[in-house]
Amino acid sequence: MGKTHYYLGLDVGGTAMKAGIISADGSLVHCLSEPTNKNAGPAAGLALMEQVINLCIKKSGIDPDSIKAFGTGVPGIIDLKNGIILDAVNLTDWKNVPVRSHLQKIFNKPVVFLNDANAAAMGEAWLGAGKGAESMAFITLGTGIGGGLVHQGKIIEGRHGLAGEIGHTRIEMSRPRPCSCGQFGCLEAYAGATSVLKRTYEALAEDFNKISDLHEPAEKKTLSCKDVFDAARNGDPIADRLVEETSSALAIGITNILHFFDPEKVVLGGGMIAAGDDFLKRIRWFVKDQSFKECAQGEDICFATLGNDAGILGAAIAARQMFISTN
Amino acid sequence: MGKTHYYLGLDVGGTAMKAGIISADGSLVHCLSEPTNKNAGPAAGLALMEQVINLCIKKSGIDPDSIKAFGTGVPGIIDLKNGIILDAVNLTDWKNVPVRSHLQKIFNKPVVFLNDANAAAMGEAWLGAGKGAESMAFITLGTGIGGGLVHQGKIIEGRHGLAGEIGHTRIEMSRPRPCSCGQFGCLEAYAGATSVLKRTYEALAEDFNKISDLHEPAEKKTLSCKDVFDAARNGDPIADRLVEETSSALAIGITNILHFFDPEKVVLGGGMIAAGDDFLKRIRWFVKDQSFKECAQGEDICFATLGNDAGILGAAIAARQMFISTN
Repeated sequence: MGKTHYYLGLDVGGTAMKAGIISADGSLVHCLSEPTNKNAGPAAGLALMEQVINLCIKKSGIDPDSIKAFGTGVPGIIDLKNGIILDAVNLTDWKNVPVRSHLQKIFNKPVVFLNDANAAAMGEAWLGAGKGAESMAFITLGTGIGGGLVHQGKIIEGRHGLAGEIGHTRIEMSRPRPCSCGQFGCLEAYAGATSVLKRTYEALAEDFNKISDLHEPAEKKTLSCKDVFDAARNGDPIADRLVEETSSALAIGITNILHFFDPEKVVLGGGMIAAGDDFLKRIRWFVKDQSFKECAQGEDICFATLGNDAGILGAAIAARQMFISTN
Repeated sequence: MGKTHYYLGLDVGGTAMKAGIISADGSLVHCLSEPTNKNAGPAAGLALMEQVINLCIKKSGIDPDSIKAFGTGVPGIIDLKNGIILDAVNLTDWKNVPVRSHLQKIFNKPVVFLNDANAAAMGEAWLGAGKGAESMAFITLGTGIGGGLVHQGKIIEGRHGLAGEIGHTRIEMSRPRPCSCGQFGCLEAYAGATSVLKRTYEALAEDFNKISDLHEPAEKKTLSCKDVFDAARNGDPIADRLVEETSSALAIGITNILHFFDPEKVVLGGGMIAAGDDFLKRIRWFVKDQSFKECAQGEDICFATLGNDAGILGAAIAARQMFISTN
């Protein structure tokens, strides 16, 4: 008693392996990141986790005994109950990787295991844009669309760990676009970054004669989602229509969240929020237009504030929560 | 101590006012129902509540002091925080009716206030089709479509008491049907009983020459939702298509629930479940076809089992929960 407790969060990703230590009050004491070699296989990955954790503890100067629990956020399809990565699309050959038991054995600490979107959701709910909210829905706008639900400070995992998969809720029946999941009409097929690019190429092909800044990068095959949002801000008509359609589709997803879960905050994270205020304003406008008037309070739909730290912070917060509830 | 506690549930409805008393273990000791005069106004309504409650207590033979709390499920648009019915569509002139404070004053008991769909959800989660489930989504298939979410035994109310409004989540963008809420493309516009009837009249007008058992009741304006489901069971081609479309739309709503909330059970209640097993089979088939394979376990999508008692039971359970948490 009287001694300060610390908690460690690990964020396992296709591009970086990140670790961070928080104190009992949630402030970040130390964190570091090492690049992941996504083709090096799971054994090298597990070794890198060890290395990053050890280095983080060492550099923080914290007594390892005072770190009471670990939390780890992982990508891909996971077996939540057993702490296993079943398949990670962005990490070659990572099949059935027993992350939790490995870390528990090496470090002799309790380890809580969660998917990366839920880890980021926990971070934002406790320390970021959702701080103080009784309930929060988090949406990651990246290549695809993921998400997480936090209710009274805790993740709603769902029966199969699938709660929050807002990207694969369906918003179109009549003329549904195909989705990466094999289904049709999912939100991700209209509003994920991959979809924005795909729809941009389609629009440029359709409107070949229309003047647009996007023709050049499209022909060079260097077109990025950022190009589309930048061009829209500069008044490019094709880009403007695409950003408008993307915002409208996202607003349907958000409205569905408001009407089904009625959270205090809807927090948008992921690479696409770099599109900035213009994007947020459009989304808010469509949500206001489509949702019950009680819900349509624009400022409750906002961007994440923790950036790349959300995952490690959330994983560490989850570790703290588990430790407190069992001690 | 040692003395048995009881809880009273009241279900305020446009056709009936129902009260029931449960013992601490959740079994129904006594219940009764009186017809509501929906045009008699709120003062008569409040008087009827009193009368039904007093009669229920009297007939049960239970000492009023051993009834520790009341729960009341109410229809319409409500102010959850202050226990007020703001507007009830099916009860003429019920505007700003302070149900909770009125009952508290008359009976001198704590009163918990919830919307009728949430009361029914609580009933099914604790004592009906969702018994034992860690989380449950309840969908009422009536004139419109409502619902409620129960997570770890408690209602998720949402910030504005709107959580569970699955009927007003949007499933169509391209060619959306108008919904009773003023928006377009809501689930209710495709799968509520009113929508089934409306779409049947449209289909009959389109396929005027096609043989169908539904032409006759449609011409007489006596067509009911039951007629459509009955005709579909008898192989009527127009009815079959309508039930198929209704099941498909409902399955999209359910799939969206599975992917967003991932509950252990999805329980369907309300008048439309009288359509029976054929309807349920069709819904399950479409859900299986559309949802992640982990979710698509047919038997987890099921019909409610408590019928008209769900509301009073759920309201009484909510009263018990409030009493236990504050004592």
